[in-house]
Amino acid sequence: MKGVGNMANWEAYLEDHQEEIDQDLIQLLSIPSVSTSPQHTADVQRAAQWVAARLGQAGGEHVQILETGGHPAVYGDWLHAEGELTVLIYGHYDVQPAEPLELWTTDPFMPRVEGDLIFARGASDMKGNLLLPIAACEALLKTEGKLPVNVKFLFEGEEEIGSPSLAHFMTNHKDLLACDMMASADSGQLSLDEPAIEVGLRGLCAVQVDVRSSGVDLHSGMAGGLVHNAAQALVEILASLKGLDGRVTVTGFYNEVADITPEERQMMDRFPVTDTQLKTMFQVDELFGEPGFTPVERNWVRPTLDINGLWAGFQGTGVKTVIPAEAHAKITCRLVPNQTPEGVLDKVKDYILKHAPSQVKVSFTDLPGQGVPYRIPSQHLGLTAVRQALLQVYGVEPLEIRVGASVPVTAMALQILGVYTVPLGMSLDDEHMHAPDEFYRISNFHRGQVAYVLFLTELVGKQQFLEKR
Amino acid sequence: MKGVGNMANWEAYLEDHQEEIDQDLIQLLSIPSVSTSPQHTADVQRAAQWVAARLGQAGGEHVQILETGGHPAVYGDWLHAEGELTVLIYGHYDVQPAEPLELWTTDPFMPRVEGDLIFARGASDMKGNLLLPIAACEALLKTEGKLPVNVKFLFEGEEEIGSPSLAHFMTNHKDLLACDMMASADSGQLSLDEPAIEVGLRGLCAVQVDVRSSGVDLHSGMAGGLVHNAAQALVEILASLKGLDGRVTVTGFYNEVADITPEERQMMDRFPVTDTQLKTMFQVDELFGEPGFTPVERNWVRPTLDINGLWAGFQGTGVKTVIPAEAHAKITCRLVPNQTPEGVLDKVKDYILKHAPSQVKVSFTDLPGQGVPYRIPSQHLGLTAVRQALLQVYGVEPLEIRVGASVPVTAMALQILGVYTVPLGMSLDDEHMHAPDEFYRISNFHRGQVAYVLFLTELVGKQQFLEKR
Repeated sequence: MKGVGNMANWEAYLEDHQEEIDQDLIQLLSIPSVSTSPQHTADVQRAAQWVAARLGQAGGEHVQILETGGHPAVYGDWLHAEGELTVLIYGHYDVQPAEPLELWTTDPFMPRVEGDLIFARGASDMKGNLLLPIAACEALLKTEGKLPVNVKFLFEGEEEIGSPSLAHFMTNHKDLLACDMMASADSGQLSLDEPAIEVGLRGLCAVQVDVRSSGVDLHSGMAGGLVHNAAQALVEILASLKGLDGRVTVTGFYNEVADITPEERQMMDRFPVTDTQLKTMFQVDELFGEPGFTPVERNWVRPTLDINGLWAGFQGTGVKTVIPAEAHAKITCRLVPNQTPEGVLDKVKDYILKHAPSQVKVSFTDLPGQGVPYRIPSQHLGLTAVRQALLQVYGVEPLEIRVGASVPVTAMALQILGVYTVPLGMSLDDEHMHAPDEFYRISNFHRGQVAYVLFLTELVGKQQFLEKR
Repeated sequence: MKGVGNMANWEAYLEDHQEEIDQDLIQLLSIPSVSTSPQHTADVQRAAQWVAARLGQAGGEHVQILETGGHPAVYGDWLHAEGELTVLIYGHYDVQPAEPLELWTTDPFMPRVEGDLIFARGASDMKGNLLLPIAACEALLKTEGKLPVNVKFLFEGEEEIGSPSLAHFMTNHKDLLACDMMASADSGQLSLDEPAIEVGLRGLCAVQVDVRSSGVDLHSGMAGGLVHNAAQALVEILASLKGLDGRVTVTGFYNEVADITPEERQMMDRFPVTDTQLKTMFQVDELFGEPGFTPVERNWVRPTLDINGLWAGFQGTGVKTVIPAEAHAKITCRLVPNQTPEGVLDKVKDYILKHAPSQVKVSFTDLPGQGVPYRIPSQHLGLTAVRQALLQVYGVEPLEIRVGASVPVTAMALQILGVYTVPLGMSLDDEHMHAPDEFYRISNFHRGQVAYVLFLTELVGKQQFLEKR
């Protein structure tokens, strides 16, 4: 906002209240709202209550905690901008598990500020981003008494487990959530100097593989050489899913994958990241992946298959000469246009069943976390508004990018509410999302609030230009 | 002891005191002396004290708890049989971990009696067997006032972690432990009707494989397709160690393995076990192992490589879209003559380092549990005594067998004390050793006490016939 002239009232409000808003973030980060852990169910509820209260305090109306069948959703709105567009702002207040706890420098749920950085589980993904639109609307409502357009808020508590209740919830609350576009705060920028707009997301599917080799754990002296071993069978199955070159070998896995268009390839070539930067960010010595594609292509437009978890037998100190009766793995695939979660899962399961040793029994535990791949048209009105907002905040034109991650809600909004989603969040890729020592940048937290005011303001009077879908 | 004529005094003593001795077993089984878990160190100590006290109560002299550098050893003796042989009776009072606890019907350290069976961790391996020679000597000392031969007792607390301190301890206490033969109570029989003498044991080596793919756990959306995955690299490494047919593919793994002699093959062919029995015992639908050998051959005279434990990434409920930075596996090999633990470990490590993807770092955590393979000459005097004792107790000639398991102490006794070990214990193969719901047979507990009296009595006056080694 340098060079915008005299300070607007809302801007002064944000400056004057920034310390309190920072404290709000610390409060929210202190609630361990881990959606995947049954023992954190009460914490997830507590986070929903906190968000609802904070939204009401900001001037949100009709604030309510709504049952979804799973963790609750928080709704609120301000709908007095007659004749103007309605924006549904989306975010999630749940977080990933913090395990492995021993790799955190300090307690993941006792936020620690170090210079510009605030460390805590959920700092970057996405409790910081969640507060941006709330603070922006508060500043406008407390100073101007109104918002430039109509705004609805929807904060869910199940994003980190794949939003299993959200589609059903959206369908049941179509009128309440009706809007002209969605804005997702679950988003990020390239760096402190390089703004970006995410116009595509990969999809996701997940499954757990369960192998059983005997009715009971066996003694490797007595049974060793006589029976199969569930852990051995599991590693054989998992190793068969990919070649040593990183290419997925599951039959037909790549069949539906859309070819890369020349425009897409150009967009990816323009993306300002070097192998060295990627290696530094991921703390690896060497990049690795499907042959024949650049790293950016592999991340944006190629599907992947990854083992996320693995367990069998004895994991304690020392030796236990056991032949484990059971072994388990969690697998997710990132999907690209035109793959579907169901189609890919079917192929993976078929392949595993065909390649499993006959001496073991393989079964599957279905997991939440299915999401179709997503792409927004680049001329969409909301994108233009985000582009203008970021241009003003950063002083440079944002780059259009795709990301390798998945936000199932964008596909749902298109399918159920009939609207596209524009991304506006301030996370950066190096902030250890889903990993120990996750952090968020306080300077980004502040300018993200400004960006939301500018974004909403950009939409004034644009009702007639909207291409809905 | 049917048909032995009038009941001997010691026999009457055992009958009269059997209930108390059963209660002793329940007491000992209630102490969770898990040697591999640092949190059970005090319990291991408590078990040593219990065993020492019980040995003293039985009439053992010079009873003492000796430091080993690891968990303590319990020593005691009775050395007043002038001109007679000295037998060192070996056992261990430590047990395997009880995990996974949820697969136990009742608490593994709250012994449960059901008919002839007593369920508890360590029941079969080997707290029941440990009490056999103590009760036998007590019966003799309390009724006859003496033992037929000289007896020393050595009960260690580290067998289940591979007896890491025992070789050093034996070397330091060579005079204290000097003897003409060792008798190991850590042994078993074929069934309730079929006695057996174990004349050979497999060796053991163990290693933990640690794979690291990045400095920190990564988000599979951001890094998926760009970097290697520690769990993926680990399954590729582990899958490379064995063919799908069960044969170990580690270069040179079978090089030193002794050919099977015609006598050995005959002995194995005589071994009375069917595939159906093995399948029932191990609760599997199909046996599996190295091609070209019978199940008994695979278990007695062929080496194995088994994954005992496996862990990486997220193991909780639901989905975590993480690319794990670390993955780990515990591996043990069962060894046969003429393999050595060091030689086999070197080959396994070399092979892993050569076959690991270049994008990950592989390191090894050395584990305790090295033991060389072992074979006792079949004309050994101690074997004859065990054979006679079992013939009297069972009414049938025992079979000479080898076992697939490992008892490192036998190789140490030969190397350090210069004596062979004869086996005399009452465990059966179906008793869920090292697994949930471990149990022991009370009827075997009783007749094992009788067998020990007969075994010691058989050795009277045989000093001049001993082939020491």
